[in-house]
Amino acid sequence: MDVYEAIYTTRAMRRMKPDPIPEELLPKLFDAAIRGPNSGNTQLFRFITVTDPEMKQTIQKIYRACLDELNSTKYAGAQEQVKSGDPDSPEVQQTIKIDKSAQWLANHLHEAPMLIVVFGKEGGETTTFPCLWNLCLAARAEGLGTAITTLLKLDKQKVEDLLGMPRDDVWNMHALVPIGYPTGKWGVPNRKPAEQAVFTESWGQPVNWQVPKPLWP
Amino acid sequence: MDVYEAIYTTRAMRRMKPDPIPEELLPKLFDAAIRGPNSGNTQLFRFITVTDPEMKQTIQKIYRACLDELNSTKYAGAQEQVKSGDPDSPEVQQTIKIDKSAQWLANHLHEAPMLIVVFGKEGGETTTFPCLWNLCLAARAEGLGTAITTLLKLDKQKVEDLLGMPRDDVWNMHALVPIGYPTGKWGVPNRKPAEQAVFTESWGQPVNWQVPKPLWP
Repeated sequence: MDVYEAIYTTRAMRRMKPDPIPEELLPKLFDAAIRGPNSGNTQLFRFITVTDPEMKQTIQKIYRACLDELNSTKYAGAQEQVKSGDPDSPEVQQTIKIDKSAQWLANHLHEAPMLIVVFGKEGGETTTFPCLWNLCLAARAEGLGTAITTLLKLDKQKVEDLLGMPRDDVWNMHALVPIGYPTGKWGVPNRKPAEQAVFTESWGQPVNWQVPKPLWP
Repeated sequence: MDVYEAIYTTRAMRRMKPDPIPEELLPKLFDAAIRGPNSGNTQLFRFITVTDPEMKQTIQKIYRACLDELNSTKYAGAQEQVKSGDPDSPEVQQTIKIDKSAQWLANHLHEAPMLIVVFGKEGGETTTFPCLWNLCLAARAEGLGTAITTLLKLDKQKVEDLLGMPRDDVWNMHALVPIGYPTGKWGVPNRKPAEQAVFTESWGQPVNWQVPKPLWP
């Protein structure tokens, strides 16, 4: 697959078929992952692949509780906004769509054939996230969907204990990624025009180019 | 370019020709960057492209001072190890190689035709780093080398002031990336076997697969 097709169409896929990940793909996915950039080639990343149904179910319950906690705290304002806002406005529509998708994942996380848990050093997301993204791009090339989530960090200790992590303060859970064959279609994620995210020479100076539409396909 | 070729051969390229980045490539690179995953589609990333020679020189001087600071603090132990260690051991060899490359970059940073400065929210490297990595992969497909560095964060305030950032605590500099046509050859970065970074079901449980050699080419 062309690198631009992979970049443009690797959007978060949360709804997956139960079919298992073919075993011969695992070396491919992880060998791609570890090629990511990392400070001083220290390779401070670890992954756990979870397929055991009971383990997945336990993780799902923790995940569900994390989302409930978030709904009652950080997201409470957003939900209020949805209730009181114009239901036809694009902002409210997007909030509703994202919330629906998040709720769905929280109820069905264990149905993904595999959960990949990602670990790194504290502050080491500068290493783990490019590597994790390599894994998602390689998965995309193999027809596998992924969805990166950091929500479980709200109850990190519980997950780390469940997975038998030593309590030595060296490794930290950075993310969880369900992976599987998606039920939905691949698509280009919706973004504001790129030129709005880029300045030239100094903060606030607009660039002299525009992207009229996504450059792929 | 095939996505695996991009993933395998996008290693840090620090030595670059002075040739400018063709302007028509900028929309391509940044439109790829912003397709990266980001929490709730909040798109909390900004980039500044710096090509002004004086500005680049000033950034290089700050960068040089940051490395000097690091050498006298965090890296002092490593340098002691190099002096007292076996000069033929792979560890000492790697430390010497990385140090040499870092020193070179610190002295020549301004010679790259463009410096890209990356900004996000505090803790938002989970968003900025996959996007930045997309940019590096797209650059690779166009024959452009990149090298992600976070060293400037040691003197973040100075760089943010130089670039005219508002002091509003919203945006933070996350990384700096020199970009240009490399003088050296593309190559697959050296990594420990992938199976050493992956466990199955729980921490420490080895996987039942191996990667005999990098799976690309």
